[in-house]
Amino acid sequence: MEIIKGGVTAAAGFEAAGVEAGIKYQNRKDMALVYSQTPCKAAGVFTSNMVKAAPVIWDKEIVEHSAYAQAVVVNAGIANACTGSEGYACCKKTAQAAAECLNIPEDAVLVASTGVIGMQMPIDKITAGVKKLADAKKDTMEAAQMAAEAIMTTDTVDKQAAVTFEIGGRTVTLGGMCKGSGMIHPNMSTMLCFITSDIAISRELLQEALREDVKDTFNMISVDGDTSTNDTLIVLANGLAGNPEVVSRNEDYEKFRQALHYVTMTLAKKMAGDGEGATALFEAKVIHARTKEDARILSRSVVSSSLTKAAIFGHDANLGRAFCALGYAGVAFDPDQVDLYLENEDTSLPVYRGGVMLSYSEEEATRILSSPEVRILADMKMGDAEAAAWGCDLTYDYVKINADYRS
Amino acid sequence: MEIIKGGVTAAAGFEAAGVEAGIKYQNRKDMALVYSQTPCKAAGVFTSNMVKAAPVIWDKEIVEHSAYAQAVVVNAGIANACTGSEGYACCKKTAQAAAECLNIPEDAVLVASTGVIGMQMPIDKITAGVKKLADAKKDTMEAAQMAAEAIMTTDTVDKQAAVTFEIGGRTVTLGGMCKGSGMIHPNMSTMLCFITSDIAISRELLQEALREDVKDTFNMISVDGDTSTNDTLIVLANGLAGNPEVVSRNEDYEKFRQALHYVTMTLAKKMAGDGEGATALFEAKVIHARTKEDARILSRSVVSSSLTKAAIFGHDANLGRAFCALGYAGVAFDPDQVDLYLENEDTSLPVYRGGVMLSYSEEEATRILSSPEVRILADMKMGDAEAAAWGCDLTYDYVKINADYRS
Repeated sequence: MEIIKGGVTAAAGFEAAGVEAGIKYQNRKDMALVYSQTPCKAAGVFTSNMVKAAPVIWDKEIVEHSAYAQAVVVNAGIANACTGSEGYACCKKTAQAAAECLNIPEDAVLVASTGVIGMQMPIDKITAGVKKLADAKKDTMEAAQMAAEAIMTTDTVDKQAAVTFEIGGRTVTLGGMCKGSGMIHPNMSTMLCFITSDIAISRELLQEALREDVKDTFNMISVDGDTSTNDTLIVLANGLAGNPEVVSRNEDYEKFRQALHYVTMTLAKKMAGDGEGATALFEAKVIHARTKEDARILSRSVVSSSLTKAAIFGHDANLGRAFCALGYAGVAFDPDQVDLYLENEDTSLPVYRGGVMLSYSEEEATRILSSPEVRILADMKMGDAEAAAWGCDLTYDYVKINADYRS
Repeated sequence: MEIIKGGVTAAAGFEAAGVEAGIKYQNRKDMALVYSQTPCKAAGVFTSNMVKAAPVIWDKEIVEHSAYAQAVVVNAGIANACTGSEGYACCKKTAQAAAECLNIPEDAVLVASTGVIGMQMPIDKITAGVKKLADAKKDTMEAAQMAAEAIMTTDTVDKQAAVTFEIGGRTVTLGGMCKGSGMIHPNMSTMLCFITSDIAISRELLQEALREDVKDTFNMISVDGDTSTNDTLIVLANGLAGNPEVVSRNEDYEKFRQALHYVTMTLAKKMAGDGEGATALFEAKVIHARTKEDARILSRSVVSSSLTKAAIFGHDANLGRAFCALGYAGVAFDPDQVDLYLENEDTSLPVYRGGVMLSYSEEEATRILSSPEVRILADMKMGDAEAAAWGCDLTYDYVKINADYRS
């Protein structure tokens, strides 16, 4: 597997665009298109929230029932959630407009939205935007960049990743982009993430690989504990790499899973590190847990603790808070058996062992806490399972961004 | 039932004190004593956190196995959590010192701590503090006030409540105090709360009443989603009211439950409204849910949503966030059937109905959001159950307080 530059246009036959449609934001790109020159197999995972945005309902239908998908139209600014039948009609009109411009069937067009909940979409601006996107689409890295920028809301950087790998002597490429900064505590997938590949693979295995992968990637990040109404993760595979089609759980399937994991993991960590107001990427890692599920629950609990996150922002080595968050996760363990470490890229500082906080160097701890990536590692000494979760610190800017998001 | 002024000394035979012991804070009271002139039946509920502070372990033993209890010694500044056998030994030494000064058995002394996790207690200062407390204790309202102030950490106000009611022609009094501002998301009880009564009641019914009551009071408040290692709620009943002992679930027991509920509810709401950095008390009420448990889960989810809390701080009527929080609570419902209202003391503004956000007056919504008490009401239209949860807004000051709590 080789890591390459690029995003949704890295794989053969994919084009993208990002344009200004003036939906809610002014003077910035706010609509994006991902388009494949040939029909794609599509797989998707969506929010588990009972309150699902209209585009989530639309996309689930397409992923489950359409013969194939060929385009995704995305807008930022309005989430098209809590918008009732008018909101769903807007998804249909968006797909119709794209189908006409791109000369593909209406039920091959996926749609996705992110932004304010409860506001209706300005459908005229959306359909005008679709036309601009269809005219602007290109298969270049610049086009992928424009698309990645257009889907941002409170994100401070665009988020892309791509890799290549070999199957049956053919080079297969996989690339993706995502957005997400607040309302991030996915439970099924994440805010918005689009991955494209030229791999030839069966629809069943594409969906299976995605469903398994999110358990350790997008479902393990948290910015604020709020699971969005719009979480959407879609993979499109058009088969243009010309590899022998992957139809069984063989070595080729494993290669694809590894490539997919690299791209999703990279994007998920970019999302956590760019959490609203964040100054640091915060990783909680749990090793030697009894089961994988225990390890996931424990690491998610630590990475979601507001008090721990505030302490990281303050570079304050108040690590009892992280241990406390292990304790209320809902997993049984003996506190006297657990070891806790504070880590960054080059240092591992033991902070808790044998039932007591150790007297570690405050200076050393503050140095680690001032790193751009801070890790808390818990060794449960109960079994062989491990998991990691990613989030960010809790800052003044998180409050600032969210106290007045709509204006 | 009559609401009266006072706290832990309101009931007959109870004394209290609050003194400066210099444990961690300087120039303020940081140790408190609650003492009964005669032996008490004791009931308690404690944190469900796997990581339990030493005093929680000590108190559970006493509540479950001692013949009676007669005193509670409390300190603020250090939580005595993650302190291992040294921490437990400190509880024992504290109880021994109190037993000696007060001339009561060691196993009749409860202890409680709140503050930083992972630091060892200065036992000499604690035992010196115990002596000062024993000398200072009085049965006055001023003494209760001193005790209530001594147990504060980041609290901005002391929290007390008391009531009287009649049983068999005798006046029974019930009073209490609590502290709690951060690390508040109780699951069994709350940070620290002490309730005293002169009622004569069986130990079994005292414990049962407490256990049932917390489900709708202390377990329904949340400041930051962090369940503490030290949550402790204790009730002491010395029987000095001279009422016929309550030994069955009769009318007298119901009177006691109502009085207990008033005191715990009042204290719980005071705690939520004084959440770290809070500018408003935030109530989420759910009516017409299918089951009581559903109603509790839904209301807790809304009151715990960081995004909704930040919007309340900003007086921004971004109510899709509250609806979103209902959706990810883990309870099944049809979003098209639910009605949502934004309320304060004198106004109820419909904001969501029939699957769409309504076009409400922003001015009116901002006015409601600027109230000291803000309520979001969800009508699920599924059954007869209801519940309410209490929290506060998420502010700059929450981050400020917690980014550098130890210094």
